Amino acid sequence: MTTQLSEVSRPARLAADDEGITIDELALAARNHGMPLEALRHDVTPQGLHYLLIHYDIPHLDPATWQLKVAGAVETELTLSLAELRALPSRTVRVTMECAGNGRAHLRPRPISQPWLVEAVGTADWTGVPLRTVLETAGVTSSAVDAVFTGADHGVERGVEQDYQRGLAVTDALGDDVLLAYEMNGAPLPPQHGYPLRLVVPGWYGMAHVKWLRSIELIEELFTGFQNTVAYRIRQDREEQGEAVSWIAPRALLVPPGFPDFQTRERFVHPGPVGLTGRAWSSRAPLAAVEFSHDDGRTWSRARLGPDDGGRWAWRRWSAVWDAVPGRHTLAVRAVDAEGNTQPDDGSWNRGGFANNLPHRVPVTCLS
Amino acid sequence: MTTQLSEVSRPARLAADDEGITIDELALAARNHGMPLEALRHDVTPQGLHYLLIHYDIPHLDPATWQLKVAGAVETELTLSLAELRALPSRTVRVTMECAGNGRAHLRPRPISQPWLVEAVGTADWTGVPLRTVLETAGVTSSAVDAVFTGADHGVERGVEQDYQRGLAVTDALGDDVLLAYEMNGAPLPPQHGYPLRLVVPGWYGMAHVKWLRSIELIEELFTGFQNTVAYRIRQDREEQGEAVSWIAPRALLVPPGFPDFQTRERFVHPGPVGLTGRAWSSRAPLAAVEFSHDDGRTWSRARLGPDDGGRWAWRRWSAVWDAVPGRHTLAVRAVDAEGNTQPDDGSWNRGGFANNLPHRVPVTCLS
Repeated sequence: MTTQLSEVSRPARLAADDEGITIDELALAARNHGMPLEALRHDVTPQGLHYLLIHYDIPHLDPATWQLKVAGAVETELTLSLAELRALPSRTVRVTMECAGNGRAHLRPRPISQPWLVEAVGTADWTGVPLRTVLETAGVTSSAVDAVFTGADHGVERGVEQDYQRGLAVTDALGDDVLLAYEMNGAPLPPQHGYPLRLVVPGWYGMAHVKWLRSIELIEELFTGFQNTVAYRIRQDREEQGEAVSWIAPRALLVPPGFPDFQTRERFVHPGPVGLTGRAWSSRAPLAAVEFSHDDGRTWSRARLGPDDGGRWAWRRWSAVWDAVPGRHTLAVRAVDAEGNTQPDDGSWNRGGFANNLPHRVPVTCLS
Repeated sequence: MTTQLSEVSRPARLAADDEGITIDELALAARNHGMPLEALRHDVTPQGLHYLLIHYDIPHLDPATWQLKVAGAVETELTLSLAELRALPSRTVRVTMECAGNGRAHLRPRPISQPWLVEAVGTADWTGVPLRTVLETAGVTSSAVDAVFTGADHGVERGVEQDYQRGLAVTDALGDDVLLAYEMNGAPLPPQHGYPLRLVVPGWYGMAHVKWLRSIELIEELFTGFQNTVAYRIRQDREEQGEAVSWIAPRALLVPPGFPDFQTRERFVHPGPVGLTGRAWSSRAPLAAVEFSHDDGRTWSRARLGPDDGGRWAWRRWSAVWDAVPGRHTLAVRAVDAEGNTQPDDGSWNRGGFANNLPHRVPVTCLS
């Protein structure tokens, strides 16, 4: 009988050319949901519509006994209760968060994992204690290199049993807007978003924002745990070390116009001017422009950008008008940031499907 | 060029024997999420974890101008604002709601639609005005046969453009616990659950609980709209009229024990006694028993039922102990109600995959 982890928990793989979505991918999609794109109309994503990616199970933690430990290369180890954290000065930061694997299911070949289309995003107001406050209280020693954040969620990936754990360079951990967050949109974190405490690293893909946080350890070398060195690497070949996934690449999304077909989600509009709107973001540099195409990317024009009032880490609204004529069309949008990063037509394919960002395409039928 | 609804919006179909999940099914799964099974631990499903099935788009309604119209075979037509509805005496009812297509993706052949595995369920406390109060105020005439509930969500299904609309027999509409609900778990309805008002028909599958409700029309014949006579029918053959989908069949679900593999969601436990728990429900008759199998359904034993304190329409907790030994196992659970309805091994296959209820099976590897 099979009784070893590695006989059930297998290596990562790519789908065959003609391979439909597998039942395993579906099981992930049934629990880890995206944000319905019509929710792009909200500055802050309503509770329950923010995307969600949970590696293992949602832990059930008792806030009365839960504690955060801060240990390792610090002058004073700390053990903090939720009440003690809540008594410290707090900040609220608006953050557009995106899963590093957003868009994966559109890649060819398709990396087998959580099969996101384009909807793995959401924006929330996170409230908590600046991580820097806690690290300064503990007194990080000059020899510290990485901070290791450990969550209470436990599982197996590719044969490796683990608590979910991520390392972050001390310089990044001391960033102005990094939070130990206990509230989302003014209410205690929901269980699925990390109750009672999660890390929020604005501008980074979701894997950095460790949920159900229970310890922070300062270490004197680079962290070599699974989620930093095995998963979440940008690789073309299985064997290469690859580049770490970090800051969010530019992306624009469109609220699909008109009304949908239930089964295919294809859209219908009537002829005439159709107001289009959506959101766009980039963390690598501030958003510079959104471009819109009504002809599947053959020609592009500038969309109008909305106010830049959500702060550095929040998405920004855009709008455009399309003069619809009868027939089938493919609308497309793409974002450009101030450093010229944009959305390449190959989506920056890599084996994990990370940080890929194909332009958003929406097929629309204009009825006659 | 194609400019007709019916050329894009196609008839229902069954998957071929070897057909993987299609990209259309995935697009539905990415937005209509299930309840992660570990959330079975909660009596009331936390906000954002309750299952969600939205036929078209989430409408954006202004509560200040929104009105409910009550018309047709009534003595006095009514137009009610949200404030007027909130001023009427309210009730709160705890309801386990399940999608009629729950379990569909496990059927062979698989009906192509929202590809639920087993997680399309949730329990909420719904607060609102008894529908009967409003119908009695309007004065339903003796000639009224069906009440037709129309939502603000608009789309196309199988070539038919429509607002989501369901008919309910007047006798059912006058049931004790049927609500016009404006709160879910003590807070205003979230947009995705029907804000500002939805119908709640306790004990019925989700399709009856019309969201974003804007009108109730009493009619003097049976309603023949799409969602009652074309969709949501139990048919073996495409041509038959079929039976209407209505009351929820028995089902038991298990909190998958131990810890998961990320990709396959398969479970791992260690040898020894493993406490198992879950929930079970039936609306056709009160729940009578839950049966548990550790050997893929070859042998069954009775689980212990928890207190029956959630009311007639809420699920009930069950528990059992499994003495795990090394190897691969398939656990299974099934519910039986007081009328002897249970979960047949063929899942009551039908072309739409409605009201199917295969026993819940969970593969578990016990490590040595």
